[in-house]
Amino acid sequence: MPPEPTLRRLPWYLAYVSELAAGGVEYVSSTQIARKLNVDSSQIVKDLSCLNIKGRPRIGYAVSELEQELQDFLGFRRSHNAVIAGVGSLGSALLSDSGLQRYGLKIVAGFDVNAALQGGRVAGVPVYAPDMMADVVAATGAEIGILTVPASVAQATADMLCRAGIRALWNFTPRRIVPPPEVVIQNISIYAHLAVMYNRLDTMQGGSGAL
Amino acid sequence: MPPEPTLRRLPWYLAYVSELAAGGVEYVSSTQIARKLNVDSSQIVKDLSCLNIKGRPRIGYAVSELEQELQDFLGFRRSHNAVIAGVGSLGSALLSDSGLQRYGLKIVAGFDVNAALQGGRVAGVPVYAPDMMADVVAATGAEIGILTVPASVAQATADMLCRAGIRALWNFTPRRIVPPPEVVIQNISIYAHLAVMYNRLDTMQGGSGAL
Repeated sequence: MPPEPTLRRLPWYLAYVSELAAGGVEYVSSTQIARKLNVDSSQIVKDLSCLNIKGRPRIGYAVSELEQELQDFLGFRRSHNAVIAGVGSLGSALLSDSGLQRYGLKIVAGFDVNAALQGGRVAGVPVYAPDMMADVVAATGAEIGILTVPASVAQATADMLCRAGIRALWNFTPRRIVPPPEVVIQNISIYAHLAVMYNRLDTMQGGSGAL
Repeated sequence: MPPEPTLRRLPWYLAYVSELAAGGVEYVSSTQIARKLNVDSSQIVKDLSCLNIKGRPRIGYAVSELEQELQDFLGFRRSHNAVIAGVGSLGSALLSDSGLQRYGLKIVAGFDVNAALQGGRVAGVPVYAPDMMADVVAATGAEIGILTVPASVAQATADMLCRAGIRALWNFTPRRIVPPPEVVIQNISIYAHLAVMYNRLDTMQGGSGAL
């Protein structure tokens, strides 16, 4: 597995290369990617050396090949089943975001304590009571659990998902989750991002006035 | 301004302290927060020293005071106006997520090239043509621009938002954005998170078989 900073940059390269592919461009050099994305070109060469692709001197990488290799390497061309715990406002929003599916994420079921939602569908995805979790995870082979419950029940729900057989947690709550050691966790830092933006904006306003 | 790692941890403390407050707990020690969130307790004391609050020996922090100080410090109790560029599947999803407002983010307008959306409302928020951007940003005083357009037009749309007067960009696209130096940017790493989870899951499956 490549280091995480590399895994974080590869989707940037993919997005740019997909643009080039859509525009009919055939070759791209690391220098060109570097200029466009403001990443050091030697870093790009190093990152792309994880892939099963070689650039050609003075020509660069074949765009369509690079696009496919990146998609394969990142896992975006295989479908990965996920369940979502918490079908409130944010959970429903994610269920309605068709874009995730293009990146290999297929949400196959939702869970919610709200009895009015249980047995129904949101954006075509069936919603179950939380006590169905183990059965549904087993039946669907879902490996990823998306956490969109209220912060106060985030840890308990994460524990339930892990007991049900989920092996990766994607945490959208502001609550820090402590998962079992064998479970992968990724935290969407929505709230930290807001704090950083607010803080910088306020600092700029309260600055030296040297505009 | 505190360092960014501190700003990233403070929302975790807030979520936990809010739980305690809702449960009627009056005092909490750094050791207790440390145990619950798996963060070193001396780190917690250091992080909280940015705030205008003192813990008491053997008693800890007053929960409701700590909650308020954290909310104030993070900017979650003031309303910050934002516009959203791209009212497709993800953009509409964010407009429908009422949770953001509780963290001080008020989305006041959306922009989309789709003429069928222009002049209408999504989740109560008016949607305009992109050429209205400068007028709408000026009229609403919005400072934050949320990017939920297709990756191929992400940089061009970011440039438009900045020209319209936006001072912070929240990028939900997989495309890396290079903003003007004075503009704050935060990237939601949805696609990198997926890649990390897929990669770890596949590595586990293809592992030594030593289960």
